[in-house]
This record gives sequence, C-alpha cells and structure tokens, in this order.
Amino acid sequence: MTYSVAVSGASGYAGGEILRLLAGHPDIDIRTVTAHSTAGQPLIEHQPHLRSLSHLMLQETTPEILAGHDIVVLALPHGQSAQYTDALGEVPVVIDAGADHRLRDALAWEKFYGGPHPEPWAYGVPELPTRGGKIRDTLAGATRIAAPGCNASTVSLSLAPGVAAGVIDPSDIVSVLAVGPSGAGKSLKPHLLASEVLGSANPYAVGGTHRHIPEIRQALQDAGAAEVRISFTPVIVPMARGILATSTAPISADATDADIRAAWEQAYADEPFVQLLPEGHVPRTADVIGANTALLGLAIDRAAGRMVVVAAVDNLVKGTAGAAVQSMNIALGLPETRALSTNGVAP
Amino acid sequence: MTYSVAVSGASGYAGGEILRLLAGHPDIDIRTVTAHSTAGQPLIEHQPHLRSLSHLMLQETTPEILAGHDIVVLALPHGQSAQYTDALGEVPVVIDAGADHRLRDALAWEKFYGGPHPEPWAYGVPELPTRGGKIRDTLAGATRIAAPGCNASTVSLSLAPGVAAGVIDPSDIVSVLAVGPSGAGKSLKPHLLASEVLGSANPYAVGGTHRHIPEIRQALQDAGAAEVRISFTPVIVPMARGILATSTAPISADATDADIRAAWEQAYADEPFVQLLPEGHVPRTADVIGANTALLGLAIDRAAGRMVVVAAVDNLVKGTAGAAVQSMNIALGLPETRALSTNGVAP
Amino acid sequence: MTYSVAVSGASGYAGGEILRLLAGHPDIDIRTVTAHSTAGQPLIEHQPHLRSLSHLMLQETTPEILAGHDIVVLALPHGQSAQYTDALGEVPVVIDAGADHRLRDALAWEKFYGGPHPEPWAYGVPELPTRGGKIRDTLAGATRIAAPGCNASTVSLSLAPGVAAGVIDPSDIVSVLAVGPSGAGKSLKPHLLASEVLGSANPYAVGGTHRHIPEIRQALQDAGAAEVRISFTPVIVPMARGILATSTAPISADATDADIRAAWEQAYADEPFVQLLPEGHVPRTADVIGANTALLGLAIDRAAGRMVVVAAVDNLVKGTAGAAVQSMNIALGLPETRALSTNGVAP
Amino acid sequence: MTYSVAVSGASGYAGGEILRLLAGHPDIDIRTVTAHSTAGQPLIEHQPHLRSLSHLMLQETTPEILAGHDIVVLALPHGQSAQYTDALGEVPVVIDAGADHRLRDALAWEKFYGGPHPEPWAYGVPELPTRGGKIRDTLAGATRIAAPGCNASTVSLSLAPGVAAGVIDPSDIVSVLAVGPSGAGKSLKPHLLASEVLGSANPYAVGGTHRHIPEIRQALQDAGAAEVRISFTPVIVPMARGILATSTAPISADATDADIRAAWEQAYADEPFVQLLPEGHVPRTADVIGANTALLGLAIDRAAGRMVVVAAVDNLVKGTAGAAVQSMNIALGLPETRALSTNGVAP
Repeated sequence: MTYSVAVSGASGYAGGEILRLLAGHPDIDIRTVTAHSTAGQPLIEHQPHLRSLSHLMLQETTPEILAGHDIVVLALPHGQSAQYTDALGEVPVVIDAGADHRLRDALAWEKFYGGPHPEPWAYGVPELPTRGGKIRDTLAGATRIAAPGCNASTVSLSLAPGVAAGVIDPSDIVSVLAVGPSGAGKSLKPHLLASEVLGSANPYAVGGTHRHIPEIRQALQDAGAAEVRISFTPVIVPMARGILATSTAPISADATDADIRAAWEQAYADEPFVQLLPEGHVPRTADVIGANTALLGLAIDRAAGRMVVVAAVDNLVKGTAGAAVQSMNIALGLPETRALSTNGVAP
Repeated sequence: MTYSVAVSGASGYAGGEILRLLAGHPDIDIRTVTAHSTAGQPLIEHQPHLRSLSHLMLQETTPEILAGHDIVVLALPHGQSAQYTDALGEVPVVIDAGADHRLRDALAWEKFYGGPHPEPWAYGVPELPTRGGKIRDTLAGATRIAAPGCNASTVSLSLAPGVAAGVIDPSDIVSVLAVGPSGAGKSLKPHLLASEVLGSANPYAVGGTHRHIPEIRQALQDAGAAEVRISFTPVIVPMARGILATSTAPISADATDADIRAAWEQAYADEPFVQLLPEGHVPRTADVIGANTALLGLAIDRAAGRMVVVAAVDNLVKGTAGAAVQSMNIALGLPETRALSTNGVAP
Repeated sequence: MTYSVAVSGASGYAGGEILRLLAGHPDIDIRTVTAHSTAGQPLIEHQPHLRSLSHLMLQETTPEILAGHDIVVLALPHGQSAQYTDALGEVPVVIDAGADHRLRDALAWEKFYGGPHPEPWAYGVPELPTRGGKIRDTLAGATRIAAPGCNASTVSLSLAPGVAAGVIDPSDIVSVLAVGPSGAGKSLKPHLLASEVLGSANPYAVGGTHRHIPEIRQALQDAGAAEVRISFTPVIVPMARGILATSTAPISADATDADIRAAWEQAYADEPFVQLLPEGHVPRTADVIGANTALLGLAIDRAAGRMVVVAAVDNLVKGTAGAAVQSMNIALGLPETRALSTNGVAP
Repeated sequence: MTYSVAVSGASGYAGGEILRLLAGHPDIDIRTVTAHSTAGQPLIEHQPHLRSLSHLMLQETTPEILAGHDIVVLALPHGQSAQYTDALGEVPVVIDAGADHRLRDALAWEKFYGGPHPEPWAYGVPELPTRGGKIRDTLAGATRIAAPGCNASTVSLSLAPGVAAGVIDPSDIVSVLAVGPSGAGKSLKPHLLASEVLGSANPYAVGGTHRHIPEIRQALQDAGAAEVRISFTPVIVPMARGILATSTAPISADATDADIRAAWEQAYADEPFVQLLPEGHVPRTADVIGANTALLGLAIDRAAGRMVVVAAVDNLVKGTAGAAVQSMNIALGLPETRALSTNGVAP
C-alpha cells in the first residue's frame, strides 16, 4: 500500500530534508506540505533543490489540513507540536521532529525547556542499546515517534555501548561537537549570518545549558548508567551540515582494550546505519553527508585514562530526518533501510 | 637601532606570517629570506600577499647565508633546526618557530619526536604563569627562543591560571580543538586538499599521540601541576586560520565560583594579548584573525563538576609568528606590543 | 539483465562519483575497481563515503583486468585512455570520463591538448540541440561514449538553444564560471590546498587557454553556429562541488523577449535533467549538489544588448559522472533517468 | 594635530572596518561611535574583534551627537545619509560610506535608487584616471567625500586605464564578480544565512539591475568613454570578504599588445594601492584581505577579440573603508598611505 503523508514546517531545513528522503520512498505519497509565514507559496520557492516536488503548494499548518493522512510529520520549532497532537488523534502515525516528546523526566523538561511537559513518545534512535534490547523494539508498531535531537543522538550512539557493557564511566563524560549551522534551522539570527560563520569557529550554550543534555542523560540511563554527568560544548563551524562529536569518558578500572572494542563491535555489528571504523581510523563528516550513516571511531588513551569516541553524522539525516524515516519504516513494518542511503555525497 | 633579520622557511605559512608582522616593525630590517625548493625565486611568487616585500629574492637556506644578521628566525619543518643552530653561534638572537627547542624532558622528546634531543630554549609564551612569576621573566635578554606550538600554547594559556591557583585538577583534562588547516603548513598531503577540507570536520592524532601533548604537560607543570593528564583531540575544520580550544578540567573540591574566576582575572589582568571575556561570554576565532590576541571565556559547570575554558587564537599569529615577535621584542628590550595588533580582521 | 562494470580511476573524484551513482543502479553490478598508486588497497580507504562498496579492493589498471566486463568506465587523467581503448575492443560499452575522445577537430586537439588525436566518440550530453535533433539521438545504441567536460557542458547547455534558434550571436560570448576545486581532481597541487582555497576566489587559465574552449565551440557549432568566439574564465571558489556559469552573448537584432525565452523553453521542455527556472529566477549551485540537474535562469539585458544565462550544475554529477550514467542508460536502452536524482542535497 | 572622529553605523560591517583602520591611525581620535538598534550597548558587544576600542559605548545616531567633531563618517544604509548632512554643515570633513552622494546623474539616481537626488560629493577612488588627471586631484582639500561602491570601484579601476587610452571599447563590457556576503552588510535576510551561502555560488541582481552599474558608467565616462554599456553580474560565494572581478571588453581595432599593457602600466605605475601583476599572472582575493590593495592581472585574448582584466579587492577595505580613509588622508593633507597596509592577511 501507499501511505499518504503531510509534512508541516516544510519550508525549513528539517522539513526539507524529510521531503527529500520521502520523495525517494516508494511507499509514500507526499500529499500535503504546510508552513506558517510562507503558506500560499510554491514549495519550490523555499526548497529550490526539491525539483521533483515542484508541483506542491505550501498550505497553512492547521489541524484540519494535517488530519486525514496516514502519516503526519511535525517539523516545527520546539514547543509548537503539542497544539497539534490532540487534534491528530486519529492519524495512525505522527512523527515529531521537534523536542516536545523526547523527555520522560518532567523535571528535566521544566529545567531545560519550561512550560507544560508533553507526553513522551517512542524515541527514534533504533540502534541505541537498552537494558535487555534496543530502542528498535519499542518502535515496531509505534504510532507516535519523537525524532531525536541531532547532537544528542550522536553523543548517545557514541557512548551507549560502552555504558551498557560497563567499560566506561558515564559520570564524567566530556563531549565537544563541531556542528554545521543548519542544525539551528533557517532562523534569522545574527550569529547565523554567513559573514559571521565563514572563517570562524563559534561555541554556544557553553557550561551545561544546552537542551540536548537531558536527552543524552536519558539515553545513557536507558543503556544502564546509574549516574550521567556530561560536559557538553557545541561549536558552530563553517560547514552547512554535519556533526563531528568527540566524546570521552574514563575507562573502567578493569576494562581491557579488547573489552572496550568488543562493546561497540557487538552493539553495532548488525546495524546498517551505525558503523564502527577499523582500529586506528576516525571518521570525518564529509563521509556521511546526505547519508543516514553514523560513523564511529574509537581510541583508547591509557595515558589520559580515557576512551575517546569520534562520531560523524549528518545532522539533517541520521540526526533528524533520516532517523524519522528509519523509525517510520520500523513502525510501519517496512524494510528499515528503505529510501535511506548508507553512502555519503563526497567530496 | 635597526636590527637586521633573516627568515628561513620564508615561502611557508609560518615564515610568511613572521614576515607580515616584521614588515610593519619599525626596528626591523628584513634583509634576507631563505627557502629550500623555492630558492632563487622572488618571495612574492610564494607570498603574493606581501606586497611591500616584493623586492626580496628567496635564497638558499645555508648557515652562511643566515649568519651575519642580528636576528635569525628558523621557520623550518620539525627536526631541521638543529643543523643550523651550531653554525649560528654568533648570531645575537635566534628564534625557532619549529618544535626542536621546546621540550626540556628528553624522554618526552624521544617518545613524541624521536632522534637526539636538542637543547631547550626560552619558551615564547610570556604570559604563562610559573611558580613565582611568568615566563616573560626568562625572555628578557634571551638569545635563543623557541616559539610555541600553536595548539599547545592555546591550551596552556587556557588552563595554567587555574592550575597555578589550585582551583582545577590538571590530572584529568580534556581538550578538543577546532583548528584551521594552515596549522599543518603548506604541505601537499591529500587530507589537506581543499576538496577534502571544505564542508567537513576531520579529526587527527586522536587518542594521545599529538606532539603538542608533552608541551602542554611541561607548561602546566611549570605552572604548578604535580601530575598532568590530558585527552587531546584536534579537529580540522574549514577555516584557513584559527584555533577554538574547548578545555575542561575537574573543579577542585573547595573552589568557589569567585575563586575560579579570580584565578584567571588575576593571571591576565595586565596582559595586552591574553584577554578574559566577561562572565557569560565565550570567544570565536573570527575575533582574533590577524591579531596577536588570545581571547578566553570561562564557564563553570557544577552539574558536570567541570570548569570549561574556551580559547580563540590565530594559530599563525599568537600561536606562532606573533608569539615569536612578542618574545623577540621582550628579548631585545623593545616595547612588547610593537608591530602586534590586538584587533582582529572581521568579518 | 544485470550488466557487469569495471571502473578505473576509482580512487579519484570522478571515479568515486561514478561509483556512488552506480551503487544505486538496479541493473548494474560493480564488479571491478582499479587504480594506479592505490592498487592493492581497499576502495573504502580512498572513498570512505561509499560504505556499501566497502567489500571492493582496488586492482591494477590493466587492459586484462578491465576486459571481460559489459561496461568499462575510464576515469583517468587526460591522455591515458587511449592506451586502454584498443585492448578493450570487445567490451560492449566503454565510457571515457576524460577528454581524450571529445573533440572531432584534430587541429583543436593539437592546440589545446597536443599529441596524437584520439578517435572522437559519442558525446555524453543528450540534451544538446543539434541541427535536426539532439545529441541523444547519437547515444542510442552507442558503444563508445565520451563524458563531457564539466565546464564545457555547462556553458554549452546554457547557450545552445539560443544559438540553434538564432536569437543570440555566438561570435562574442563571454562566460565566467565560479567552480569548486573538485573539478581539478584529487591532485596534490599547491593552489588546491585548503589553506589556499578557503576564503579566496582564484581564477586560472585566463585569456583563452582553457581546454574546454574547443569543446564548447564544437557543441555550439553542432547547434548551428557559424562562428563561435568565447572569452572563458573559470574562478575557483571555496565550495567542494559545483559550477555557477554566467554566460552572456549579444542579442540578435530582431529577437523579441518572447522569442528568446521560447528558444530555451522549447529546447528543454521535456528534459528531466535540464530545467529552466521561471522568469526572474536564477539558480544557485546549492540546489543541484548530488543531483543530475542543470538549472538555468535567463535574463535579457536590453541596456547592455546582451542575454545572460546563469547555469548551476554539480560538476561531478551532471558535469561528469551523472552525464556518463545518463548516456549509458540511453546507450543500453534503459530508462534514461535510472539511478539519477533531480533533487539536490541542500542546505 | 589630532582629529576627532565620529563614526555612525558603528555596529555594522562597513562601520566596523572604518573603526579597525582608524584605530591604527596616529592622527585620529575615535571619540564617538553611534548606531540605531544597538545604541546604549558597548561597541565591543557588536565588534568583538576591536579589542582596542572596548571602552567605547554606542550612542544614538543623531545630528547633535555627530556634530562637533572634525570628521564624521556616515556608514548608514542607502538613503539615510541625507537627513544628517544638513545638520552637519559645520563639520569640516564628512565622509559617506553609503551610496547617497556618488552619482551626478539625476536620472540614473532616479532609475536605480529613486527618491530625491542628493548632492554629489567628491568620489573616493583617487587612482581613477579622468580627462587630464586623476580623481585624486579633486580630493585634496575636499570637505565632503563619497566612498565608492565596492563592486563599482573594482570594475572601474579594472577598465578605466584602457578606456582612457582608447585601447578597449567600453560599449560592450561584461563583468562577472565573485563576492563575499559581507558586501551586503549585517542584514538578516534568508539568502545571507550561513547555511545558504556555505557550499554554494549564488548570483543576484542579474540582467542589468544592480545599483553599481550607473556608478561604473559615470567613472568610465569620466575616464573618457563616449558610451558605456555593461553586462554586470555579481555572484555571492562562500568567503566572508573579497571581490574577484573578471571584466572583459573588446580590444580596439589597432591596439597592439604593447599598447594595451602600457595603458595600465602607465596609469598605475606610481600608485601604492593599485598594483598591476606581471604578465601571465592573475590575482586572487586571498592576497588582499585586510589590505587596501587592488591587484590587477591582464590577459589579451585575441581569439575572442577581448581584453580580460581580473581584479582582486577586499570589499571592506579598498572597496569601502580603506577608500574612505585614503580619501580622508588626501583631504586632510596627510600622507595618503597612513594607517593603510598594502599587505594582506593570508592564508
């Protein structure tokens, strides 16, 4: 069968990437695209790279317009999904690309986002180990899916296998991420202007304030951590897409090098979209642009007493839209890899 | 008086930047520029931005040609300085922009560089606190100066005040640096090609192998650390110049926020070229391009139990050539800031 | 049926892009990849983004290894194809991504390339108008195909409809192209280093020396031009991929605005991969990255007496590898668009 | 003596660059900086690279605050200068970095800008040849100076010598410019977002609508042209600063190669800031970043019948702020090169 889809926030970066992926999905019919300020205009004016969708017009984002589809994707600014979710009660599958439905901890929600705590949904990172399984198990047949935060899922995928295996200590993690500005969306803020970003590295949310911190904490607790403490610093660098996350954690007292490597190897051995590079190799973001692949490289630094995991992810694909489509495939019982490529576009 | 200068390695990036700075120095006469494969050609062919030096021809790098100047700057690949230093015995001031004369620890030299351990020289980072003073004290009247490693001095300047004041624990440092490719020199290596660097973040020397690690350890030990352990990861990002170093260390048990901030404030209060940003601010590399300024921003992350220092430096200026000129000014008894700007070229 | 393919030059940029496209082609079995200096190594070491091909080893580029496939793609430096073409006499389809087989004019070959003039093959730009048809006609059933020069095909596609319709004068064309460095291949040349390319615009082959000039001349003569004169200037800019060609030509004396626009509209009305933007719109390269699409925008500048055509192309896709695959599809009688996307990867 | 200066628009890019240059000017006291929406805030918040000016507060832009200085610089959006110029009647020197006072032709003003035509001022490109002299002659003792448009002055400097000498035909000029986004100012427009500019080449104002066209026409007429027709296309590329202008014009019937080269050589022989590269060389923008230098390279393409001039300029320095300071120096009788460097910051 073919599933009809409506995508809101279709003129933004996350919405555009979801459309790019779904345009190549043989089981999907992109029927409706909606937006706010750009409603009434052709989609192609705002996503001029989506040539195959040039027939679509942006409509208003209203519950009425979104309802009546098999699948609704909400690619809205944080905090705006909740107003639609009630009205979409009869839509078989709703995917939120925003943050609203990611956190189970109401206190963490309150501290990092504020406002009423929306209901947590199935979390769209299938490969993450949990006590006794993987998140994938919760996605089969899911009707409400929260796509992950791009930085959060990158760090969680980097560290969860070591946490689950007990070979690293999650109570003193340090993660520093080089990130492209598209992660911040198509928003007109001075620090996102090209003249400010070109030729510069620009950190933000330094010192424990980034909203993805509680999301990482939740994922690593699900993987078995008792206490998660993380120093988390994202740095905007001059590349449109991509996350290069360098994450380190203390090596557990008795973990051998073989133990450590085995933890990641076993966790991701059969995963098409999370790939561990051979010993001595680390990834770069160039290799995953446009792909739904997370590439991981490990280094064991005994002199520092720390394990280093370097992860490369396309923030808009595996970090957001690809995670959404992959989770959707699982939820619908379709082949998990459908419409998703492991190959990047490089150079 | 005017000092005559010879600069070797003049067709490279470090050599070119030294020439750019010295071209604006009223006490310096750039008399001789030397190179290897490009000897015999006009300097301007290889440094087309140095219009005011278009009259200079590149000569062979030989002891005879370098001798007979008041000052000789060696901007050569690591390991090549030693062959010249003996023959330059009568040159009043020799500055090595390479690594050869930075390390006092022969074992560390052996491990990270190999080969015979050259004599350590005065270290060209005047602002670094030492037990009882600053490195500046050792530079007054110095005749042999080792310019610092760009990444090393950035991290050392970031953390030394906290180490000296005892407010952070240097035994579990994590530093991740976004760096421009010019730090790797004008070398024809595949990973330095534009097509590889554009649109990508590319880590290297992951897991404790980078040669700047022993240099940081030495600087922090000089600042008072008993034991220095550091996880150090540089990531090449698509900006020609600049280092954005995010360094974290555990906060000492009883250090208050005021203690912590005071450590950096006091260390750098009177420094023209190392500036602490106000609370809540972090620097970006754009603000120091072309300048001899290191900008530091502090964040105290009590949830993570870590202090975060973000530093922005132009690797070719404060990281190398500016450090050399600043140290030269001190050595010669000239005003320390001569020919050096605190203002960057932005955007 | 499934066609077996061998790709030479598989560790380079053009070879890598051909592999990326063929990896998604349902009728193709990538059986053999060959290289020179990297032979004996895994393909994935040199094309780390091609995760689905990580099982392939690079073999030597020899006639023996290339022979015995249904299709051979030669992605070699200019002048190296000829040595293989004789030995590949029994291979059903050979595609040369290099320049060797593009030019019919022996004098032009001699002047711009030198050495013996190889036999001209079917030219891989199906959409180009010719007297009485399109180049597509010559590709059906073709056994030897010359993929186009990326800059040449971009300019030819820009201007050929106007030339064919007689609404512009091809005797005084001016084309200036902003191009990414990947067009120059993975070659270790100083001007292709990231530090040289970042933050800079760098012209080359200025004043009529670029090798794509005779190729443009040939294409426009095929479209009906009596005399073609072109001032052609490429400028390397800091983007890995992409060509933004601005081409102008004098407007013919009696051509109305409607005539002019109609020439391009009619030429490309049914073309999936060459798309004319609506009046008032011009393309940018971001919109075609990864896509086999050439986007054209027209402007009629009566004050200057010139027609301006702006074209955006991904040099590695529609400019090279996509053109090769599209032509291969036609030659084999497969659907022309197979394995080729019109949608770009943006931002 | 020391001149007191007020700079309006001080939180923008042009204002910031004027401040960067004046901060190194020994005869200038930067007394006042003004802005609109950022008034009341420290300058350093908006120009964090201007460390030496961190004591300055942004004040409101009012005639009262600007009056009472020896020099006032207006770095305001186009059309906003006129409201201040009356009230600044007693200020000895006023420099407008905007477009308001550049054009003498009221019809051209009306067509390209609209609204009442402000009084034309002395044009701040000293090196431009005029019938019987250079524009420099009109700047000595000038009290009202219009800094040039960055694209306009780059093209005018490229072609004026050939026009003045009669070796090229100004009635069929084609100019295509690769430009950095800083030329568009610090304005929050979608096409100036980093995600849109990174990895892309983006043309604008195609087909004869760019406001710098009448300014070029005026300059070339002043150089002796009877009729100026120009096809002018700027293309935004991913570099913060810089203009690389490729300009071509038909070669006059009887002009020899020697005639052509002599025209440029003679025009700029004694100019410190406009430099002609040797035969066979073309400039790149990297070589002029931060410098007040315009570098020109010539190529004579007899096959195309056209002369090609490639010019590299830093749009914020020689294109705007450097031109303003250079003109100010001339107006005040100071050495013309004071506070201006010919050396760029590269790589």
